[in-house]
Amino acid sequence: MPPTLDHPASDRLVIVMVGLPARGKTYTARKLSRYLRWQGRAARVFNVGNYRRERLGAQQPADFFDPTNPEGVAARRAMAEAALKDMLGWLQAGGEVGLYDATNSTKARRRWVRETCEAAGCRVLFVESVCDDPAVLDHTIRETKLRSPDYRDVDPDQAVADFKRRIAMYERAYEPVDEPDASWVRIIDAGRQLQVHRLTGYLPSRIVPFLMNLHLSPRRIWLTRHGESLFNVQDRIGGNAGLTARGRAYGRALKQFFDRQNVPDLVVWTSTLRRTRETAAELGRSFRPWKPLDEIDAGVYDGWTYAEVRDQAPEEFAERGADKLRYRYPRGESYLDVLQRLDPVLIELERQRRPVLVIAHNAVIRSLYAYFADESAEQVPQIDIPLNTLIELTPRAYGSAETRHTLIP
Amino acid sequence: MPPTLDHPASDRLVIVMVGLPARGKTYTARKLSRYLRWQGRAARVFNVGNYRRERLGAQQPADFFDPTNPEGVAARRAMAEAALKDMLGWLQAGGEVGLYDATNSTKARRRWVRETCEAAGCRVLFVESVCDDPAVLDHTIRETKLRSPDYRDVDPDQAVADFKRRIAMYERAYEPVDEPDASWVRIIDAGRQLQVHRLTGYLPSRIVPFLMNLHLSPRRIWLTRHGESLFNVQDRIGGNAGLTARGRAYGRALKQFFDRQNVPDLVVWTSTLRRTRETAAELGRSFRPWKPLDEIDAGVYDGWTYAEVRDQAPEEFAERGADKLRYRYPRGESYLDVLQRLDPVLIELERQRRPVLVIAHNAVIRSLYAYFADESAEQVPQIDIPLNTLIELTPRAYGSAETRHTLIP
Repeated sequence: MPPTLDHPASDRLVIVMVGLPARGKTYTARKLSRYLRWQGRAARVFNVGNYRRERLGAQQPADFFDPTNPEGVAARRAMAEAALKDMLGWLQAGGEVGLYDATNSTKARRRWVRETCEAAGCRVLFVESVCDDPAVLDHTIRETKLRSPDYRDVDPDQAVADFKRRIAMYERAYEPVDEPDASWVRIIDAGRQLQVHRLTGYLPSRIVPFLMNLHLSPRRIWLTRHGESLFNVQDRIGGNAGLTARGRAYGRALKQFFDRQNVPDLVVWTSTLRRTRETAAELGRSFRPWKPLDEIDAGVYDGWTYAEVRDQAPEEFAERGADKLRYRYPRGESYLDVLQRLDPVLIELERQRRPVLVIAHNAVIRSLYAYFADESAEQVPQIDIPLNTLIELTPRAYGSAETRHTLIP
Repeated sequence: MPPTLDHPASDRLVIVMVGLPARGKTYTARKLSRYLRWQGRAARVFNVGNYRRERLGAQQPADFFDPTNPEGVAARRAMAEAALKDMLGWLQAGGEVGLYDATNSTKARRRWVRETCEAAGCRVLFVESVCDDPAVLDHTIRETKLRSPDYRDVDPDQAVADFKRRIAMYERAYEPVDEPDASWVRIIDAGRQLQVHRLTGYLPSRIVPFLMNLHLSPRRIWLTRHGESLFNVQDRIGGNAGLTARGRAYGRALKQFFDRQNVPDLVVWTSTLRRTRETAAELGRSFRPWKPLDEIDAGVYDGWTYAEVRDQAPEEFAERGADKLRYRYPRGESYLDVLQRLDPVLIELERQRRPVLVIAHNAVIRSLYAYFADESAEQVPQIDIPLNTLIELTPRAYGSAETRHTLIP
């Protein structure tokens, strides 16, 4: 991607996770990676635990993690080195943000990671997760660790006990991040408090608002395109047409759906365009129009049919076909522009604890959906979002569960 | 303003500054107020020190601030009550964000402030500034306090000594914010570290990225419109015209200016439109086009002259004249839309330590300039930004110094 100011001087960044086991490091690393990939950056998680599982086998007893067991120490060090080497190789080959997911719980280990990364020309940001709330820890262990290959076919209570012994091994040697010259973010008790130290660079400053608004409260998010509009029927792009009778019927079907769901605190967002507001009007609930949810701006081709663009502007049509993500309609927008203007919407969606229904447009729903489905920016223009279909998402620790409701045929 | 999702459910917020004297509370409160007013919110600082100066006279000796001096304590408490009462009255009358600027250095004082505000239906966010770096403190005292009416006509060294005695009075009783159920942000050593605790609500989540990127490093920012374009000559709005010969001459004049300035590390931003890129091309430096810097979208009137809009769409013309801030061109943008999409640009401008030149458009430069000139959103559409003029801004603790260079007649 050519550098734009939205992606300025893409200096390579390594985000080094820090924390005892079961502190949500992998959750945070995956969320960050998902967010960065959604923005169109090359981001990738390198999980040292996976190297261990792949190379040494999953089921190691807790004393493998005992810092006084020289064989375990050497084996784990070798895995850490292999993952770091692979990450730096990937960054040299064009990667932008590597996420190094391991406990990194001692200053000596962090100094080695940092010096190695900086010597390879990468900046380093530590992201430490700290949590001493036993309820949160127990929940994390049962939600994520017991599903890990490390404990396949192991009795759950026995697995929890083993995992707590593993944590205790690390606790003895744990040194919180307080390196005075380092850049770091500390997440305390799953977001209750956030500490940010010596942040420099554009990308780190963009990551913090995202981290700050993450939470684990259960909730649902619904995404839908507006009901059928007059322009949909004519196959025209853009415009500001109203709904057809069928489009209004979809609005009524949405109302029936949400009346059955019993969500009195539902938050409804629309774009500022007629077709989304007319769809929302059928719900009989208050809704807020939001400009960043407007459809991709087709610029000079607003109001044209795709056939007209193909026949009368074949070069533009071909250029768009060749790179639908970066192609910007003359005087209009690219998908990448849309992703960027949706950034505050996405952060607000993450922040919301109430259930949210977003009624928007094809390119916009594709863009938002991509984040929840863990699709990179490259995939966004290909995602299939049919009309008359309500997408229900339930965010989980790793990814989101999805149900599609076809409300009218 | 009607609520939009960008200004959702405008629950009233009180930002309560906390910190010893000379910790930058007033600086931070004013910056925040400026930022919020720029976004179109009703924000206002209530500075308890000003109540004291206005009602009791400026020049009180340090022992007025001695917590064991009952007369001083009672007088200062009365000033704190008067400012809080005025602030809550202003919020009831339609204010959105009150900034309560005082030391608020004890838990008892903060409990009283918080309970009073919450009883009046306002949320409370504490913003504490902590600094123990003697060099920063000395700089702050000399930069701001010695210019205060408290020390008019006082010998500087004597004033510094008196002010340090005043700080010592507060230090004895100072209790850092650690109220477990409160929302707070702690700024440590002028931004080296930031701590964020139990942030809830949309507005607090928007404030943190701004606070996180503030810094006191000296630097200059230049704002300019592009050189004259073919559309400027024809008095047409919007479009994507190139420069006239005169427009290119302005680009060359900019080059001469910056060659003389000796700013090898100058960062140059343009919009994605031809006229700004063609202006920047004359500089012979690299520059980055940024979509949020594009001119306000005139929607269906793109390419029209103002005379044509007035004659052929008199109702739109009148509606725009009546409220130029909120008027949204059909299928286009309002000034308020432009302010919102410029938010990441502004935060990136604050974050930059290098000198920055922004080459953009009338509505965009008006919007950015308004922030530095401490103009509210309401003023933005009236600001005069002539062509062929380079605006040089030097951010200071309170506001910015400004020079206008008319580079070609």
